[in-house]
Amino acid sequence: MPNANAAASANPADSLAERYRATRALTCALLDPLSEADATLQSMEDASPAKWHLGHTNWFFETFLLRDHMPNYALHDERWPFVFNSYYEAEGERIARFSRGMLSRPTVEQIREWRDAVDHAIAPMLDDPERTSLVELGIAHEQQHQELLLTDIKHALFQNPLGPAMFTDATHKVAQSGDDVWHQHPGGIALIGHDGGEMNRGFAYDNEGPQHQVLLTPFALAPKLVTNGEWQQFIDDNGYTNPALWLSDGWAWVNRESITAPLYWHETEQFTHAGWVKRDPGAPVTHISYYEADAFATWAGRRLPTEFEWEAVAQNSDPASGNQLDSSRAPLPLGGSDLFGDCWQFTRSAYLPYPRFETAEGAIGEYNGKFMSGQFVLRGASCATARGHSRSTYRNFFYPHQRWQFTGLRLAKDI
Amino acid sequence: MPNANAAASANPADSLAERYRATRALTCALLDPLSEADATLQSMEDASPAKWHLGHTNWFFETFLLRDHMPNYALHDERWPFVFNSYYEAEGERIARFSRGMLSRPTVEQIREWRDAVDHAIAPMLDDPERTSLVELGIAHEQQHQELLLTDIKHALFQNPLGPAMFTDATHKVAQSGDDVWHQHPGGIALIGHDGGEMNRGFAYDNEGPQHQVLLTPFALAPKLVTNGEWQQFIDDNGYTNPALWLSDGWAWVNRESITAPLYWHETEQFTHAGWVKRDPGAPVTHISYYEADAFATWAGRRLPTEFEWEAVAQNSDPASGNQLDSSRAPLPLGGSDLFGDCWQFTRSAYLPYPRFETAEGAIGEYNGKFMSGQFVLRGASCATARGHSRSTYRNFFYPHQRWQFTGLRLAKDI
Amino acid sequence: MPNANAAASANPADSLAERYRATRALTCALLDPLSEADATLQSMEDASPAKWHLGHTNWFFETFLLRDHMPNYALHDERWPFVFNSYYEAEGERIARFSRGMLSRPTVEQIREWRDAVDHAIAPMLDDPERTSLVELGIAHEQQHQELLLTDIKHALFQNPLGPAMFTDATHKVAQSGDDVWHQHPGGIALIGHDGGEMNRGFAYDNEGPQHQVLLTPFALAPKLVTNGEWQQFIDDNGYTNPALWLSDGWAWVNRESITAPLYWHETEQFTHAGWVKRDPGAPVTHISYYEADAFATWAGRRLPTEFEWEAVAQNSDPASGNQLDSSRAPLPLGGSDLFGDCWQFTRSAYLPYPRFETAEGAIGEYNGKFMSGQFVLRGASCATARGHSRSTYRNFFYPHQRWQFTGLRLAKDI
Amino acid sequence: MPNANAAASANPADSLAERYRATRALTCALLDPLSEADATLQSMEDASPAKWHLGHTNWFFETFLLRDHMPNYALHDERWPFVFNSYYEAEGERIARFSRGMLSRPTVEQIREWRDAVDHAIAPMLDDPERTSLVELGIAHEQQHQELLLTDIKHALFQNPLGPAMFTDATHKVAQSGDDVWHQHPGGIALIGHDGGEMNRGFAYDNEGPQHQVLLTPFALAPKLVTNGEWQQFIDDNGYTNPALWLSDGWAWVNRESITAPLYWHETEQFTHAGWVKRDPGAPVTHISYYEADAFATWAGRRLPTEFEWEAVAQNSDPASGNQLDSSRAPLPLGGSDLFGDCWQFTRSAYLPYPRFETAEGAIGEYNGKFMSGQFVLRGASCATARGHSRSTYRNFFYPHQRWQFTGLRLAKDI
Repeated sequence: MPNANAAASANPADSLAERYRATRALTCALLDPLSEADATLQSMEDASPAKWHLGHTNWFFETFLLRDHMPNYALHDERWPFVFNSYYEAEGERIARFSRGMLSRPTVEQIREWRDAVDHAIAPMLDDPERTSLVELGIAHEQQHQELLLTDIKHALFQNPLGPAMFTDATHKVAQSGDDVWHQHPGGIALIGHDGGEMNRGFAYDNEGPQHQVLLTPFALAPKLVTNGEWQQFIDDNGYTNPALWLSDGWAWVNRESITAPLYWHETEQFTHAGWVKRDPGAPVTHISYYEADAFATWAGRRLPTEFEWEAVAQNSDPASGNQLDSSRAPLPLGGSDLFGDCWQFTRSAYLPYPRFETAEGAIGEYNGKFMSGQFVLRGASCATARGHSRSTYRNFFYPHQRWQFTGLRLAKDI
Repeated sequence: MPNANAAASANPADSLAERYRATRALTCALLDPLSEADATLQSMEDASPAKWHLGHTNWFFETFLLRDHMPNYALHDERWPFVFNSYYEAEGERIARFSRGMLSRPTVEQIREWRDAVDHAIAPMLDDPERTSLVELGIAHEQQHQELLLTDIKHALFQNPLGPAMFTDATHKVAQSGDDVWHQHPGGIALIGHDGGEMNRGFAYDNEGPQHQVLLTPFALAPKLVTNGEWQQFIDDNGYTNPALWLSDGWAWVNRESITAPLYWHETEQFTHAGWVKRDPGAPVTHISYYEADAFATWAGRRLPTEFEWEAVAQNSDPASGNQLDSSRAPLPLGGSDLFGDCWQFTRSAYLPYPRFETAEGAIGEYNGKFMSGQFVLRGASCATARGHSRSTYRNFFYPHQRWQFTGLRLAKDI
Repeated sequence: MPNANAAASANPADSLAERYRATRALTCALLDPLSEADATLQSMEDASPAKWHLGHTNWFFETFLLRDHMPNYALHDERWPFVFNSYYEAEGERIARFSRGMLSRPTVEQIREWRDAVDHAIAPMLDDPERTSLVELGIAHEQQHQELLLTDIKHALFQNPLGPAMFTDATHKVAQSGDDVWHQHPGGIALIGHDGGEMNRGFAYDNEGPQHQVLLTPFALAPKLVTNGEWQQFIDDNGYTNPALWLSDGWAWVNRESITAPLYWHETEQFTHAGWVKRDPGAPVTHISYYEADAFATWAGRRLPTEFEWEAVAQNSDPASGNQLDSSRAPLPLGGSDLFGDCWQFTRSAYLPYPRFETAEGAIGEYNGKFMSGQFVLRGASCATARGHSRSTYRNFFYPHQRWQFTGLRLAKDI
Repeated sequence: MPNANAAASANPADSLAERYRATRALTCALLDPLSEADATLQSMEDASPAKWHLGHTNWFFETFLLRDHMPNYALHDERWPFVFNSYYEAEGERIARFSRGMLSRPTVEQIREWRDAVDHAIAPMLDDPERTSLVELGIAHEQQHQELLLTDIKHALFQNPLGPAMFTDATHKVAQSGDDVWHQHPGGIALIGHDGGEMNRGFAYDNEGPQHQVLLTPFALAPKLVTNGEWQQFIDDNGYTNPALWLSDGWAWVNRESITAPLYWHETEQFTHAGWVKRDPGAPVTHISYYEADAFATWAGRRLPTEFEWEAVAQNSDPASGNQLDSSRAPLPLGGSDLFGDCWQFTRSAYLPYPRFETAEGAIGEYNGKFMSGQFVLRGASCATARGHSRSTYRNFFYPHQRWQFTGLRLAKDI
């Protein structure tokens, strides 16, 4: 019964074609609760309209699969690449990023028809081994945009003083508390990164490799993410007004933007996809910037882990565990002792190339490499990450002031 | 048959109640060609979403008529005044102007229901002589927003690279050319402004009075508005790159904004409510700033008229003549020899109070007086002005760099 | 004994040559109390370094007298016109306005040598009747820059937390209080503007003509300028936080810039050319914007006069009276009943051309006409205006937010 | 003969007291060629006036040595800490960074007197072993500001269209070309960082430790810095207009700032401390941003080294070799085969804490740690670095868009 309600994140055990179809269906299902106007909103330059994500993910498949590898394929609409290209310079001119919010046309319905057309045309390719890696990339790309769609629309709805809800049902079972023992690591040489399919199975982005060794000193990772309650203590202890806790850039940011709490906090409530709700002190804090995460760690007498420390611990965890996105419903961090899920976790590692990293040729080569300055790596997965999308080698990255993603933190310490 | 298609601008000869209903119906009719997403777009801080105009005009009646003068009236929704108040400081806090584009909710449908409720509640007041002046003000206010709705949505649709059309039918009969004789005026004392109902009949804004005398020197007004063809000559003669033609602020603006033509021009086409169309060289040029109008006049060896000169000539013209808004269709300047219609006409008069002008008490007093710095007066009416809204004493006003209204120019000279 | 200490403003009764020399000497004398570093400071884009004023006024004479009318004149330094031209587009490229503060070279000494050279070369022209009007313009221009030099350096020194004084002696005799009767005017036709030398004697700027008639309604002008003490009452009565008192643009400015008092006020002191001093409640308030002046008038239940009202009253006053600049010493408003002096007085008139005004040909034509948008007219003269520079027809003009000049206000009322 | 002309950078072999005096004398000598106005210029927020460096370095010694450790020491002037504190939050309020250019007072002479007073008072401390580390820090701090003074004044003089020279004599002997063999490194475990005095001798900043091991893969470093001639080839090959070569942030920067060449280039010349001179194609390119360095490396088919790779190679080099600052004269890159000198060399390493790094307590703890986000590490030393200041473990850091330092690049490759 493949209707929208039944849309679910792709099961890694399924065939490529099945995963393609599940991914495509979930994207569409995420649009279902939105009106045409909701789907057109763009609240800031960092975010895009839901409708644009719907179209852009389809543009990706149409461009890199159908246009490039399907003989005689005719574009569904020749004017749309200009509108739905994101940042691929090699793909030519595109709409200014902040004008995406002006796209009242094409309609969601027209984009759905375009998606159907692409799904239909692409079907034969899904079983073609020569296209497997591009389809895998397209699925991973679309899953990324599922998460962005959710965080972008949250930010847009938040701008509305009426506090509209995207989903009406936000009842979540709070996760059972796991044990409270820090993850100890003895240090030494660790093998980091994805081997491109040799030892690990499956797909990875280019930025996860090459696999290589790093030297670690003994350390420990906290068993749980920092919670709303702990964050409230940081606030109560004047965390946001004590310059000694902050990086210089962070202190400038806090003052310039008048930051006094995580994004979406207001008094004792927080804004969610289900509207304004009471904050759960035991749930993980989220929507914080790197600056805030770093200041909190300093305040707590701890530090953020490096991305290598995190990966070394996570190699023994199931990346499909934890609170991740399974279907079209309100994502919200719940808490628990899983290494994955709930919130992306800030590391103190800048987003940089691994030794001997090389970018691919052409537009696909613009996927990751060109963002390697000024950003920090986050690891894990969030409640808005399609389950099956992340893995222990996965490197997410954002600028240190950004916080509209489901970002959180897990403390580390030297031992 | 009062359906939306039949909606027309109010006939000044009709009763107050009839004019109220006609005005309200026309506003709704202007929304009909727009999708929920179109109606939510806000393309710049100067502009507002069509939906917001729909709600704001209703807020005006609900607030100043029902809330203030209807015993026991309960607001339709207590949260909406925050959202639909525009700039009335006395009416309390309101949404930041540039966040209006985030109002995907309430829906157009919800606002239409609110309008129906207000129309129903207000009906008894329409025959109450004590409320006549406020209802007149509300009608005039709503007519102003009809014009803004049209110019705002034009600007929003223009941002879309696909160039969507709001109206499909843009065929206009081009106006017959009238005679070509300049309007001569011998100078001397002229009576300017509205007498508040004593000698002139009907409604006027506070800024049109008090009526008073001014001294004019002999002058003449051009018989027609400057045309697209004449503007092209100005461009071809390097009008936009010759600093000698420009006011100092204008020259800075031209360079800062890289201005080389009127807004909405591209090659030989212009963007209209019916999409991109070929420009008619004989039609009046429109969407120009005061700076451009002044530079053109200097280039032409003429000047802009003062607002008093314009009014002295216009006292003998029928303000309901010319190309104005009669129903929900694409407005476009056509040309002809009427003094009213087609485009608002820049004057070289700054928008300032007339002698002995005093602002009214309370929120209504914020209507006009507080804008009396930095703006220039425009006279006449445009193709997007509801017919019956303007008059010879009417003072429109904008900042010298703004050009998203249907602005044009009529030259003057000393004689 | 024409040394710097003896430098005084030009006596209108003296010959052109004498007035030329007096003006030139006073400019140099104003530089005397400044170090090379003081003279190089530029604190904002509106202001220029003292050194630049020294050079620019010399550039004016070298360019428009020597270069244009002295056969075979060779420029003192060919690179300096680029540096010392201000805004004359017709004179070619020039340094970006905000880079003037980077001119540590040439030195003040080098510019003084240049001035000596120009003074020497120009001497024969001072008796040539064909050059009289240009020399008069150059003197008037240099006097304007004397005032700007004083207000610009005041703003620059104010930025220094050490509050340095330019002049050590700031003892002023407080003016005797005159009588307290408002200047009544019966209205009717008034003759406004300068006749270009026919009836009035002497020099005037192009923007003061043509002389023409205006119709006035009966009004009265306050006998004195508004004082610091009265302004304090306005503050105490929440004048800066009550939106009902403000123009819309003014209210936005007050909030954007966090304005709570006139410029240079701090607690009970004000910053002057002699450093921080106690404010005199009886002295005229100064360094206020048009927005503030207008809000004060509204609060006081009065209004600002028009420039025509002011001129009609001032036609009977001696423009050389009042507190004006006589020599190189700290200027400060004192109070009294003179119509001229102490502070420039805001009018509610926008700066616009008089009927039949035409700009001159060439660079000189850029003197005034191109600034006729967005500014307001001020009348009178200030404590920093060289005595002899102003007259009843004189039109000064600034943008409504600017307040680094010695600006003040005189209330008006209808009678 | 310790006069200003003889001022030289401190000789590492000398006693602490001798090195203190040499450093202090060199700072003063750098001010000698500057006028009072030159010394007051601030051309951008990143830069400070020469005079401010003169005062700030003195404030450092007065505050952290005399005030904190000298019983009964009275501040030379109680108002000056507000003016000369830089960024130490723990030291309280300070002047806004961009207002430093308004400090025409105190004069250079007054600051020199203050320096003499501090030198006199501090003398007894220079032999006190308890104060050695603070004095070392003060010397290192002052040497850093010597370099900033030189790069800041260069930027300020560059703004002047007259192109003034700070030094008249810029004749440099061009360095003899060394051999052309790449520095090969076999990879493996390398010992990185300063051990705090245990194995290495002497002073180091906190950010250079703790010493720790890293794993390297085999690589090679170029024998020489990239030259002006090679950079011209990059330009000629459309390096600045080909997006495929650039990081995403870099491409945005190039377009936003209209960058087409290194800073200070104009046609075939470059601006130096000795004014505009012809560029030497064989000399190292300098004044480039990280973005440009990275784009060049991509264009060349190479990459930037990591800071660990650079340090592993440099451990065998003499850090006092190469073209560094010995006395008050025009610094300019010359070229040669030294690892140190000429230009700071970009690495692809973000500026981040080493494992187990901890910040010191109090204001001194603000020295380095709080800048650990968003910046890249540069290694080596430049022609403006006081000889003796740098070492193989030294970590300099700047934001990726900054280029007013003597920045250059040395290519690396995997082997």
